Amino acid sequence: MSTSYADFKPLTFHDAARRFTDGNDSPRAYLERCLETIASREPEVKAFTAINESAARATADASTARWKAGKPLSRIDGMPVAIKDLLETRDMPTEMGCAAMKGNFPKRDNAGVWALRQAGAVILAKTVTAELGGSHPGATTNPFDKARTPGGSSSGSAAAVGANMVPAAIGTQVGGSIIRPAAYCGNFALKPTQGGINRGERLATSMSTHGPHANSLDDMWHVAIEMVKRCGGDRGAMGLMGPDTLPAAIKPNRLIVLETEGWAEADPATKAAFAELLRRLEAAGVTLVRRADHAFVEALEKAIANGRAVCNGITSWENRWYQRGMLDAAPDGFSERAKAALLKAEAMTVDQYRANLLLRQQAQLAHAAAAPLADAAITLSCPGPAPVWQGDVPGQPLAARPTGDFVFNAPSSMLFAPVVTVPLMSVGGLPVGLQLMGQQHEDARMTGLARWFRETLKGVVG
Amino acid sequence: MSTSYADFKPLTFHDAARRFTDGNDSPRAYLERCLETIASREPEVKAFTAINESAARATADASTARWKAGKPLSRIDGMPVAIKDLLETRDMPTEMGCAAMKGNFPKRDNAGVWALRQAGAVILAKTVTAELGGSHPGATTNPFDKARTPGGSSSGSAAAVGANMVPAAIGTQVGGSIIRPAAYCGNFALKPTQGGINRGERLATSMSTHGPHANSLDDMWHVAIEMVKRCGGDRGAMGLMGPDTLPAAIKPNRLIVLETEGWAEADPATKAAFAELLRRLEAAGVTLVRRADHAFVEALEKAIANGRAVCNGITSWENRWYQRGMLDAAPDGFSERAKAALLKAEAMTVDQYRANLLLRQQAQLAHAAAAPLADAAITLSCPGPAPVWQGDVPGQPLAARPTGDFVFNAPSSMLFAPVVTVPLMSVGGLPVGLQLMGQQHEDARMTGLARWFRETLKGVVG
Repeated sequence: MSTSYADFKPLTFHDAARRFTDGNDSPRAYLERCLETIASREPEVKAFTAINESAARATADASTARWKAGKPLSRIDGMPVAIKDLLETRDMPTEMGCAAMKGNFPKRDNAGVWALRQAGAVILAKTVTAELGGSHPGATTNPFDKARTPGGSSSGSAAAVGANMVPAAIGTQVGGSIIRPAAYCGNFALKPTQGGINRGERLATSMSTHGPHANSLDDMWHVAIEMVKRCGGDRGAMGLMGPDTLPAAIKPNRLIVLETEGWAEADPATKAAFAELLRRLEAAGVTLVRRADHAFVEALEKAIANGRAVCNGITSWENRWYQRGMLDAAPDGFSERAKAALLKAEAMTVDQYRANLLLRQQAQLAHAAAAPLADAAITLSCPGPAPVWQGDVPGQPLAARPTGDFVFNAPSSMLFAPVVTVPLMSVGGLPVGLQLMGQQHEDARMTGLARWFRETLKGVVG
Repeated sequence: MSTSYADFKPLTFHDAARRFTDGNDSPRAYLERCLETIASREPEVKAFTAINESAARATADASTARWKAGKPLSRIDGMPVAIKDLLETRDMPTEMGCAAMKGNFPKRDNAGVWALRQAGAVILAKTVTAELGGSHPGATTNPFDKARTPGGSSSGSAAAVGANMVPAAIGTQVGGSIIRPAAYCGNFALKPTQGGINRGERLATSMSTHGPHANSLDDMWHVAIEMVKRCGGDRGAMGLMGPDTLPAAIKPNRLIVLETEGWAEADPATKAAFAELLRRLEAAGVTLVRRADHAFVEALEKAIANGRAVCNGITSWENRWYQRGMLDAAPDGFSERAKAALLKAEAMTVDQYRANLLLRQQAQLAHAAAAPLADAAITLSCPGPAPVWQGDVPGQPLAARPTGDFVFNAPSSMLFAPVVTVPLMSVGGLPVGLQLMGQQHEDARMTGLARWFRETLKGVVG
């Protein structure tokens, strides 16, 4: 049965690690507890496409020995991590939620997976993704209400963390595929600056990123920084930079409050919870800057007001060549939803694509112009709690967004901006996240601000 | 036997096409002539890893019918094109000159190959590449002297065009792998602005590009622009833009003459030929701007003076993760040369990589600053004619650069700048190229300048 979000006791790793040295706990014992939770929760949550228990146990045993010897490879040595099934793993198939990829098993590691192994992490499982990272959903349910979507496309990664089956998981975002599911499942998550974490073979689109989901800011940060120390950012990018441990809390003086295209679609209870959060911020001495307060905020709001269309226009063009190749090779390998998206993309011209790139660049300029106004921008991570999803209705048109709406997520994606989502609200007994968005390369600063939010705005609001 | 460069009559396509409509020639007949040349020259030149004669004939027949009906798909409909064997092709293996990739046959097309097919081109063959696009050479010989290297890593593409076996071929460049072999083999070639032509699955490094080799500027330009109209540039890049036909000739008023790191390594006869070219330019009324003439040229020379090391530092880091995966999967799959390069890369830290990225960015800033000084920059495409290469000597250290030195090519690679190489010099009876380098996105302008050079500086110098 689902766990009540009110009773949620998040599974973390950073605090367990200190008991690994004194012998009161061990990575192997930690893993066994995860496997017990999986045995109990996975039949309902359906977060995983593959679990490699035997390899995980062997890796956890090696980690146990390193901790005992006082020589862990990193702060995440022994951490069980699950990997979104868009990323290649040498010991589990990579099927991308797509029938055309059934049986795909390239037996090599994605750059980030390779880096996690180098840091001693236990690569425990692959997680369900919406088909090819798009919107056609897999079987995963929301860990706090099985009738609802976990969000997507990082459905399994968000749900596995929300269900305490692993302390951290890797997701990927193009439009809103890390932040939205994380928010629906009560995770902390980092959608890094574009290029922040090496995507390895997964360079399909110009605004995709890899990022960690976790039940704590500490674990979220440790996973990200330990990966980048080993595999760097995307080719040509400086990649995530910052301290080895969770950045110190940063109290903001001024925050831009962004409406985005999403405000019109947020539900009243969620708007009320957000308003309460803003009151608490003002009570703590934070100045809020809204679109009416400065022409640059208004310019930014306007530049991101068509974010979903810009993101879709760019991404669908960028996917069309390789998806056509896949579909030609396996004509029954795509959902109707994915086929319809491909046909729409194939009707585009290169100049239509370029016009969308120009809109994206203009939005980035407006965002950079607003940098001196505040320490960060905040907005909702999602229009409300995870919506109910019971599958498409035969004979009816396909539902537009079965994994929820990325309307609050398109802006940071098109701005290439770092975002941390913090599970600060509860609406109707379900988690809703708050986004902190910074300028490009301010990933560590956003994490420090998120720490202040977590420590200052006690308890979830709503 | 080798063809003498003095007697070289380049095989072109753009001028044949007009005879396809009046029935005096056909794409099928054109292809058969290419196949005859291949039968005669390939045993010595060894440019190809695979030739798909039957598919090429069928495609050429379909093209013949389109031209007869007055409905060609593009100006390159029916053009036989060869593809460097780093790019995937659905009907031929993709083995990358590497034992570890032996038998690799993914049965899908690279984005550019897909675009060429859409434009009606005849994908005739795959061409030899140095191992994984690095420096370990394949079997290809220089078409004008079989004792010499054709250059690399686009060895087969350059040699196939130089031997008149095809009118155009696709190469790729990371450090100097299009421009140098093109120069050694008497080709015209375009190394586009970074991101200019969609690399498809080949996004391994941050400064790689795909580009056409051809025996004429017209064919070179037609291939590039017809590809990009269909597959665009790299994800996130505007991609090559310009007219459908060869840009009009542009007479330069001022040209920056760059020494680069290469000047110290150019041979005296080549320097003399270059000096003669400069005299002809001045005689035509062109003002030359050298490092002593302006502080910004001096700053640019300094910023690119360590180009080989910067390029190698960046590229070897970017390759290390996937090459390690390949090597672990096939321990005997790499040459000793490639293994040594990988071990060196694995000794790097992410901060060393970042420091090289910073040097690259600084050089790009110096290049942009010099934009108002001149219409373009010119320099040699190679330090001299293709060097003799007879293979490594057992028991001796590995030769450093068996496919020649990329010392004149590293600058445009690290600057992300478009370059056209023009076969304007002959040194010791062998071809040597002149590079025209522009600011980013000036690909069409450089092609127009190249046209002026070709039309004005009659005949090859030397």
